[in-house]
Amino acid sequence: MGKEDVGITISKNDDFSEWYTQVVLKAKLADYAPIKGLIVLRPDGYSIWESLRNTFDKKFAKNGIRNGFLPILIPESLLGKEQKHFAGFNPEVFWVTHSGTNEVGDRLALRPTSETLAYTLYSKWIQSWRDLPLKINFWNTALRAEIKATKPFLRTSEFLWQEGHTVHITQKEAEEEVMKILDIYEKTVEEELAIPVITGKKSEKEKFVGAVYTTTMESIMPDGKALQMGTSHFLGQNFSKPFEVKFADKDNVEHFAWQTSWGVSWRLIGAMIMTHGDDRGLVLPPKVAPIQVVIVPIYRNDEGKDIVLSKVEEIRNELESKEIRVYVDNREGLSPGYKFNDWELKGIPLRIEIGPKDIEKQSIVVAKRYNLEKVSLSFTEIDKISIILDEIQIEMLRKAKEQAENNTLNISDYSEFKAKIEKGGFFNSPWCGKLECEERIKEETGAEIRVIPFGNENTNKKCVYCQKQSVSVPIFARGY
Amino acid sequence: MGKEDVGITISKNDDFSEWYTQVVLKAKLADYAPIKGLIVLRPDGYSIWESLRNTFDKKFAKNGIRNGFLPILIPESLLGKEQKHFAGFNPEVFWVTHSGTNEVGDRLALRPTSETLAYTLYSKWIQSWRDLPLKINFWNTALRAEIKATKPFLRTSEFLWQEGHTVHITQKEAEEEVMKILDIYEKTVEEELAIPVITGKKSEKEKFVGAVYTTTMESIMPDGKALQMGTSHFLGQNFSKPFEVKFADKDNVEHFAWQTSWGVSWRLIGAMIMTHGDDRGLVLPPKVAPIQVVIVPIYRNDEGKDIVLSKVEEIRNELESKEIRVYVDNREGLSPGYKFNDWELKGIPLRIEIGPKDIEKQSIVVAKRYNLEKVSLSFTEIDKISIILDEIQIEMLRKAKEQAENNTLNISDYSEFKAKIEKGGFFNSPWCGKLECEERIKEETGAEIRVIPFGNENTNKKCVYCQKQSVSVPIFARGY
Repeated sequence: MGKEDVGITISKNDDFSEWYTQVVLKAKLADYAPIKGLIVLRPDGYSIWESLRNTFDKKFAKNGIRNGFLPILIPESLLGKEQKHFAGFNPEVFWVTHSGTNEVGDRLALRPTSETLAYTLYSKWIQSWRDLPLKINFWNTALRAEIKATKPFLRTSEFLWQEGHTVHITQKEAEEEVMKILDIYEKTVEEELAIPVITGKKSEKEKFVGAVYTTTMESIMPDGKALQMGTSHFLGQNFSKPFEVKFADKDNVEHFAWQTSWGVSWRLIGAMIMTHGDDRGLVLPPKVAPIQVVIVPIYRNDEGKDIVLSKVEEIRNELESKEIRVYVDNREGLSPGYKFNDWELKGIPLRIEIGPKDIEKQSIVVAKRYNLEKVSLSFTEIDKISIILDEIQIEMLRKAKEQAENNTLNISDYSEFKAKIEKGGFFNSPWCGKLECEERIKEETGAEIRVIPFGNENTNKKCVYCQKQSVSVPIFARGY
Repeated sequence: MGKEDVGITISKNDDFSEWYTQVVLKAKLADYAPIKGLIVLRPDGYSIWESLRNTFDKKFAKNGIRNGFLPILIPESLLGKEQKHFAGFNPEVFWVTHSGTNEVGDRLALRPTSETLAYTLYSKWIQSWRDLPLKINFWNTALRAEIKATKPFLRTSEFLWQEGHTVHITQKEAEEEVMKILDIYEKTVEEELAIPVITGKKSEKEKFVGAVYTTTMESIMPDGKALQMGTSHFLGQNFSKPFEVKFADKDNVEHFAWQTSWGVSWRLIGAMIMTHGDDRGLVLPPKVAPIQVVIVPIYRNDEGKDIVLSKVEEIRNELESKEIRVYVDNREGLSPGYKFNDWELKGIPLRIEIGPKDIEKQSIVVAKRYNLEKVSLSFTEIDKISIILDEIQIEMLRKAKEQAENNTLNISDYSEFKAKIEKGGFFNSPWCGKLECEERIKEETGAEIRVIPFGNENTNKKCVYCQKQSVSVPIFARGY
C-alpha cells in the first residue's frame, strides 16, 4: 500500500457513502468478512462496543436488569408461534438444515430476534407474582439476511446488539419500563457518543412486528438520512398469551403477564462515525475512545531523545494517574507528520506533541482532533487535559445538535415536501393518521414516518398529504 | 412445585450425574433450551461467566491482547482450506443452506472454531514486521453438533468460550505466547474457581487438529473422570502457509508467520459445580459469586422488625463500602429456614443471620457455605467478613487439591490399571510413546492420555502396556 493510499481520499461532502466506507476500513474499525453481508470488528472498533456495553450494563444493573445467554438456534415451529412476528421475519431468516451429514428434523433458524425463545423459557420460570418482575438482557448477535449492499455497522446480515426482555405484573409497570429503557438509551447515546436523538413512537406501519407499540430514538445523519438508533417495545400480552407467560397472583388467580422488549445495535457506532467524522477520517468522542491522548515525541538525535522521552514518561504517568487512556507513539522510522496523520485518521481526541523546543519553553502543544485546534500548555498545566477532554465531549454534542437542527424543517406543503426531500432532512409534517397517506408519501418520495415525537401527538393541523385534520406531527425522512 | 421438590433430592455420592443436573437446574444457573443439545444461561449462571471474562480480559490486556468480533458463518470452501482441520470438525458442523426461501451458494458452516476465518483476515491485515505481533481474542460461541446426551456446561451443541489467535515473527515468540496463555489459564482457574489443574502437553493423537502441539490443563472431577479445562496450541506455520499469513521483515524479505490459538469455555463453570458442590447444592468460590454475603433478618413482630432491619442496613453499608457483594433477603411470607435452604442451594459463600437475640448479644451468626460451619462475630468485628471470604477462597482450593490427590494414583502394572479404572482417577502410568499402545489402552479401558505433565517427559521406565522403555509418564483417565 503506497503512502498516498493510507489516508481518506475523498471528501465527506463529495461522496458521503464512499467516505464512510473508507473511514471504517482505513481507521481499522472493521473489515469485510469473506462472505457477502458480513463484517469483522478489529480491536479499535470492538473496543467502542465494549465501552458502550459497560455503560449500558451499569445502567441496566441499577434498574434491576441482569444478563443471560440464549442459544442462536430457534426451531421453525417456535418462531411461528406468534404469527405476525413470524411473517415479519421469515423472509430474512437463515436456515440450518443439516448437522454433519444428517438432516435436522424441524429446520433451525439463526436467531433474527429472541422473543419466541426467551418467552418459551419465561413461561417455565414464572409461576407466581414472586417471580416478577423478571428482567433479563442478552448481549448477542442477530442474523437477518440482507439482500441490499453491505454497509459496515448499518446493513449487515449479522450484527452485534443487546436485546432486553422483561415481564411485569401490571400493564402500567411494563409501560413504565419501556420508557425507562428509552431514557437510558437516549442519555447514553447523547452522553457517550455525543449524538442528539429524537424520541417518540413509531407509526402502526413501522412498529415492531408483534408489539402493541414501539418507542424509538432517531437521529439525522449529515447526509440528511434518518437512522434508527434504538427501539423499546411495549408487547402488551401479545406474546404472553401464545407463549403462556402466566403468573398466579397473591389470591392464586392466574393472569397473563405484561411484557417489553428493547434493543440497540452496533448501528450506534455507524452513527458516531457519520456524525463526527471529517475529511481526515474518524473523530472519536473522548468517552468511548480506546486511546484518549496520544503523545508523539519528536527528536533528531540521541541526546534530544533521552530528554524528550523522560518528559514524555512523566506526562504519561500524570495522565494515567487520572485514568486517562494514553498511548506513546514511539515507533521508529516514521516521521512525526506520518504519525500525526495516522492518529488523526484514527480519530484520537487529543494529540500531544513534544520536542526539544517544547522542552526549552517548558510547554507542550496539544492538538484537538474534533476542530483541529492547537493550544499550548505549560508543564504545570498538564492537569488541564482532563478538563479539555470533558469540554471536547460537550462541544461535540453541541456541534452535532446544530448540524441536526440545520437538517430539520417544518413542512406543511406537499409540493415543498417533494421538492426538498431530495436533499434529505427531518421534515416535521402534520399527518392525518391514515395508513393510506403514509404509504402514498413513502411511494412518491421515499420518505417514511421515522418517529412521532412525544408531545407532537394530538395536533390540530392539516395533513401534509390529504389536507384533512391531522392527529400528529411525525418526523418524515428517508432512512438507512 | 411442592416444597419437597425445591432442594436437591439425591446425594452427590449416590448418583453424581443426576446430582449435577439437579444442581444446575435448581440453583437456576441454566436450563434446557427447547432444542436438543442447547442450553440457556440464567443470570446466576451467566454472572459467573461474566466474572471470569472480566478477569481474563484484564490479564489478556496486560499481555497486549485485545478483543475483536468475528461473524458466526464460515463458507465451506474456507473451512476446508487446512485439510486435517476440516476433517476433524466436519462431522459435527451445522450447515446453513437457505436464507429466506433462497438457497445459499457455498454452504455456510456455523463456526466450530474460527482459525480459518481469522487467518483469512490476518493475511490481509499483516504486511510487514510492524504489524506483528498481532494478538486478538474473541468472546463468542462455537457450535458443534453433539450426538451424545446433553449435559449443561459440559456437553452442548453451542457453548460460550473465548478463542485467542496470535501471530508472531519468530517461532520462539509464538511458543512463549502458548505458555504465557496456559499460565494465565492455570492461575485464573486456581485463584478464581479454586480448582487445581495439571498442565502439560496432549499426545499426538489428542492434539488439536491442525496444531503442531497442544498444551492443556486438566482437572480430575470427584467422580474420577478427567475434564479438559483449557488448551493453548502452537500452530507453527501449519495455517500461515495455506492462508498466506506472511510478513516482510526489515530487509523486505517475505516470511510465513508463526501462530498460536487458545481457548477456555463455560466447561469451567461445570468443573466448579462438580468440584465444590455438595448434597445441599451449589458451593460458589467467593471471587466469582454474584452475591458473596446474604443477610437474613429474623423477627416476629413489627417492633423487632425495625430494630433488626436498621442493624441489617448498617451491616450492609459497611460490607458494601468494602466492595463486598451483599444481598438482604427481605422476602415476606417465607420462613428463615426456607431462606437458609434456598441460599445454600444457590451456594452463596456466607450467610449472616440476625434476629432480636443477636441484637441483645450485640453479635451476628455467620454461616459458611463450603463447610457449613457457623461462627459468631460481635458487631465490632464486621470488618472480619472480608478476611473470612479470602480464607474460604483459599480453603476451597486446598480442599479441592486434597480431593484431586486422593484421586491420583501411580500405576505401572496394567492389570492394576484395568482393575482400578472402573473407579476412575488420574493414573500416572509410563508410556512408550507409541500410538498403538495408546489406542489399545483406550479400547480396553476407556482411558485416554489426558496430559503429559511438564516434567514427566524423558522418563526411563517401562510402558504400562507393552513394557518397552517409556518416553514419558502421561496421565491416563476416562474423560468427559
